[in-house]
Amino acid sequence: MILPIQFCSQCGARTSLTIPPGDNLPRFVCEACQHIHYQNPKIVVGTIPQWEDHILLCRRAIEPGYGKWTLPGGFMEDGETVEQGAMRETVEECGTAVKITSLYSVYSIPHINQVHMMFRANMRDSHVTAGEESLEVRLFRHDDIPWDELAFRVIRATMKHYVDDSAQDAFSFHVGTILPASDHPHTSRTR
Amino acid sequence: MILPIQFCSQCGARTSLTIPPGDNLPRFVCEACQHIHYQNPKIVVGTIPQWEDHILLCRRAIEPGYGKWTLPGGFMEDGETVEQGAMRETVEECGTAVKITSLYSVYSIPHINQVHMMFRANMRDSHVTAGEESLEVRLFRHDDIPWDELAFRVIRATMKHYVDDSAQDAFSFHVGTILPASDHPHTSRTR
Repeated sequence: MILPIQFCSQCGARTSLTIPPGDNLPRFVCEACQHIHYQNPKIVVGTIPQWEDHILLCRRAIEPGYGKWTLPGGFMEDGETVEQGAMRETVEECGTAVKITSLYSVYSIPHINQVHMMFRANMRDSHVTAGEESLEVRLFRHDDIPWDELAFRVIRATMKHYVDDSAQDAFSFHVGTILPASDHPHTSRTR
Repeated sequence: MILPIQFCSQCGARTSLTIPPGDNLPRFVCEACQHIHYQNPKIVVGTIPQWEDHILLCRRAIEPGYGKWTLPGGFMEDGETVEQGAMRETVEECGTAVKITSLYSVYSIPHINQVHMMFRANMRDSHVTAGEESLEVRLFRHDDIPWDELAFRVIRATMKHYVDDSAQDAFSFHVGTILPASDHPHTSRTR
């Protein structure tokens, strides 16, 4: 959820939503010092951790999607690369170090201002530990993936491509968009 | 440049830099209402516009890199996809509509908290117009690219790959990191 910026981050005065000179979009601009507060999409990074013929999923201990399964991932932090962020999230949520092999998917989710980037990754061993944000973590054979209990459509789309590509032993790179569920019958489009 | 968030966006009170409960990184937290202000990397999207055997470059009319050449690109906005952002920036800076063909490169630049995503794109015609942020826009044959007058290392790295791939008529997808210039002799690494 994107909250409005009601007060200036630099001087604490009230802001108003106006189009700054030379711009073409409304921004929260300070009424006192004129500081412009830009808001931009956030990057979510994660991995598809593979161990032999299994992939690793986490069952979420937090909202959104409490109790549902997902791939390890989360918001990229300042000061890190996309790969470092994806590996950090995997350690935090699954207690396992992974070696990243390639970027697998990039999905825009414009209605929630996010871009998701998921990496193929190999686990170094099969030891896993649920982090604070996971109820449990478990290795799944592709046939046993709980498709009806996945937390997010972007994760379903990514995993569907992954399982399909794996069955053909031909992994490609996927770029797509997740549109609002109510507007469109399809969960995603991929080029 | 990342400015500190000195005042709360929700109530206007002072913030302090502390690690919130359950977190492991310092954040600007409101001393009154406890609102946590997260700061995350920004996405820069752009295109490599191609017209016959030329690519389109813009000469920057703003800092950083005033007077130097670059590919069209800029900060992705809330509510758009990466492709929409890349096309919007190309229209704004070069006055030309492009058809995106594929995602070409993803570069992390951790010391400035940015991730750059550049797309291969075909121009619909050769008509171009410099936007407000460009002094001029011009089509260059690959042999005429002004390598010593490029504005940013990430643009140089992307264009170098593009020209090399083009010479071999084999375009691949490039993922890399741009490290601070002072720390490392190489401008980038790519997997």
